[in-house]
Amino acid sequence: MAVTEAERRAMTHALALAARGPRGPNPQVGAVILSAAGEVIAEGWHRGAGTPHAEVDALSKLPPDAARGATAVVTLEPCNHTGRTGPCALALIDAGVSRVVYALDDPGAVSGGGAERLRTAGVEVESGEQADAATALITDWLTAQRLGRPHVTVKWAQSLDGRAAAADGTSQWITGPEARGDVHRRRAVADAIVVGTGTVLADDPALTARDGDALFEHQPVPVVIGSRETPADAALRRHPHEPLFFDTRDLTAVLADLHARGIQTVFVEGGPTLASAFIAAGLADRVLAYLAPVLLGGDRLALTDIGVASIVEARRLTIDEWVPLGADLLAIAHSARTEEGEL
Amino acid sequence: MAVTEAERRAMTHALALAARGPRGPNPQVGAVILSAAGEVIAEGWHRGAGTPHAEVDALSKLPPDAARGATAVVTLEPCNHTGRTGPCALALIDAGVSRVVYALDDPGAVSGGGAERLRTAGVEVESGEQADAATALITDWLTAQRLGRPHVTVKWAQSLDGRAAAADGTSQWITGPEARGDVHRRRAVADAIVVGTGTVLADDPALTARDGDALFEHQPVPVVIGSRETPADAALRRHPHEPLFFDTRDLTAVLADLHARGIQTVFVEGGPTLASAFIAAGLADRVLAYLAPVLLGGDRLALTDIGVASIVEARRLTIDEWVPLGADLLAIAHSARTEEGEL
Repeated sequence: MAVTEAERRAMTHALALAARGPRGPNPQVGAVILSAAGEVIAEGWHRGAGTPHAEVDALSKLPPDAARGATAVVTLEPCNHTGRTGPCALALIDAGVSRVVYALDDPGAVSGGGAERLRTAGVEVESGEQADAATALITDWLTAQRLGRPHVTVKWAQSLDGRAAAADGTSQWITGPEARGDVHRRRAVADAIVVGTGTVLADDPALTARDGDALFEHQPVPVVIGSRETPADAALRRHPHEPLFFDTRDLTAVLADLHARGIQTVFVEGGPTLASAFIAAGLADRVLAYLAPVLLGGDRLALTDIGVASIVEARRLTIDEWVPLGADLLAIAHSARTEEGEL
Repeated sequence: MAVTEAERRAMTHALALAARGPRGPNPQVGAVILSAAGEVIAEGWHRGAGTPHAEVDALSKLPPDAARGATAVVTLEPCNHTGRTGPCALALIDAGVSRVVYALDDPGAVSGGGAERLRTAGVEVESGEQADAATALITDWLTAQRLGRPHVTVKWAQSLDGRAAAADGTSQWITGPEARGDVHRRRAVADAIVVGTGTVLADDPALTARDGDALFEHQPVPVVIGSRETPADAALRRHPHEPLFFDTRDLTAVLADLHARGIQTVFVEGGPTLASAFIAAGLADRVLAYLAPVLLGGDRLALTDIGVASIVEARRLTIDEWVPLGADLLAIAHSARTEEGEL
C-alpha cells in the first residue's frame, strides 16, 4: 500500500519534531502515531542519549491499547537493539501497531534490522518517505557513523608561498576581514574546535564563533591537544563551553573520545604542527586553505611535515571549490583518492 | 592643421614597416615620406642598433632635394640625439621636410626633444596619431626604458602548501599538462629565460619554448646565473640561442647587461634560491605562481628567504588574475605598492 497523504503530512511533522532534539551520540528522530482513520493521536521525539527513543516517547503519551491498529510514522527505521532502552521495533509490535512508515534505513550494524523484525511480526512497513529531508537533518551524524569518528575539517591561513607567519612570528593579519569572517561562520556550525597547546600559548585564542563583536548562537566546544599547561587566565577558559583537554599525541583516541561525547564535526584550527599531524595521520576529511596575496618566505610554515617522502606519496587533493573572499582565496578540498573521506 | 587622410594611411603603413625591424636595444620604428600632394615617395624602418634610424633610412631612398616641402610620417618622435647616427630631427630639417606627423613621444631623456627642435626650425609638427597602436608595438621596449632594465617575471610552480618538491627532491609532476603548456607559451614571448646553476645541475632543463614536441618559432635566450659549472653536455647547450652565463650574485648587473643586449623581458624560472633573490632584491615586476592541488610538507620550498623579518614587511601582492589551468590554478600578481613595477 502506497504512502497516504495523511502519512506524508505526518512525516513532515515528524521531521520538525526530530529537529527539536539535540545533536549528540544518537541521531535526531521524530515520530507521529496516526489512528486507523489517519488522525494524529500522539507524537514524540528523541531528547538525547539515555532518554526514550522517539517511537517510545510517542507511544508513552497513549493509554494502553490505544495504538492497536495504528500507523507509526518515524524519520528513522525503528531500532532493533537493546541499549539503555529496549528495541523500538519490539515496542511497536507490543503496542499493536499495524503499519510503520519511515524515512531512512538505520545504518547501524547493531541497531539495524528493525524493519525486518516488524515485517516478520506481520506489521506493514514502508520506507523512503522524505528520505532526502531526513538525510539532510542528520547528515553529520550519518557521516560520523560511516567514519566511525567525527568528520574532521583542517583549516589554515597562509601566504601565497605557504607561510603562517613572518620570521619573527608575527601574523596579524595575513588574511583579510572577509576570510576571518568566513572562519567564524564555519566555527559556528562545528561541534568542536580543536587547537594545539602551542597555539594556545602563542595566540591565546578565544575559540568562540563571533559575528563581529557578538557571539553566534551556536558555539563549538573548545578542545586543546598537547602536554603543555593552558594558563589559568587563558581566553578559552572564558568560553561558553567547558574546554576539553587531551594530553596525548594519539589523535585517533581524541576523536574516539569526542565521538562518544556526541561530537559529529570537528574544526581543526592549528597550529601548523597539529594541522600537519591530522593530515599525516590520514584524519583530515576536508581541508580549508585560506590563501592571502602576500609573500613572506622564511621558515614559519603553515604545514610542517606530513609524512611525504617522495612525489609519488604526495597528498593529491580534489578542489571542491575556489572561493574568493575579498583579496584572499579559499581552497576547499578533499582527498583525490576518495570521494570524500580522509586525505 | 589636422592630420590628413593620406597621413593617416601613411601612419598605418609606417607601423607595419616598424614591425619588420628587430626587438632590441632600440625601439622598432617605421617612417613614410609623403610628397606635398600626399603621395608616398619613400619609406624606411630601423633594422637595429648601429643601422640608420627609420627617417634617415627613408630619406636615403630619395635624390637630393626630393624631400623639400615633403611630410614625414613616423611612428616615434624623431630623435634629437647624436649616437652612432646623427639626430633624425636635424636630418629632416636638413632635407627640407616642412611637416612631421608622429605617433608617440620619445620617452628618452637624452633622445627626446626632437619635436621641439623641429618646431624651432619652422617645421609643422603633429603628434599622437595612432599612438595606441604604436605603444602596443613597442610596449616592452617602453617598459624597459621606464624601468631602466628588462621587465622581470618570476615564475614558480608549487604545491598548495608552497613546496617545489617532495622531501627527496622529486617533483615531476606537481602541476598538470595545462599549467606546463602555459609556461611554454609564456617562454615563447619572453626575450630571455633565466635559471640558476642549481636548477641546471638538478633538472638539466632545455630552456626552450615548446608546443608539444615542436619548438615555437620564437625562442628566449637562455641565461644561467651562478658560479657552478654548466656541464658540457647540458641540454641548454643545444638551445637554438647561445646561452649567456653570469658568474655573479649581482642581479642588477645581470639585468643591466641583458638590457644593453636589447633584452626587454625576462622570465625567471628558478630555482627557489634565484626566484627568492629576485623578489628579495625588489626586481620582480610580476610573479606567476602555479598552484597544484597537492600537499607535500617538508622543507623543499618554492620560495626560500625573501628578506621579510616581520609581518609589516610582508610583500603584499595585487592579484591581476586567478587562472584555472586544468586542476591547477595560476596566480598572476604584481606588487600592491605599485601600479606595476617591482615587488
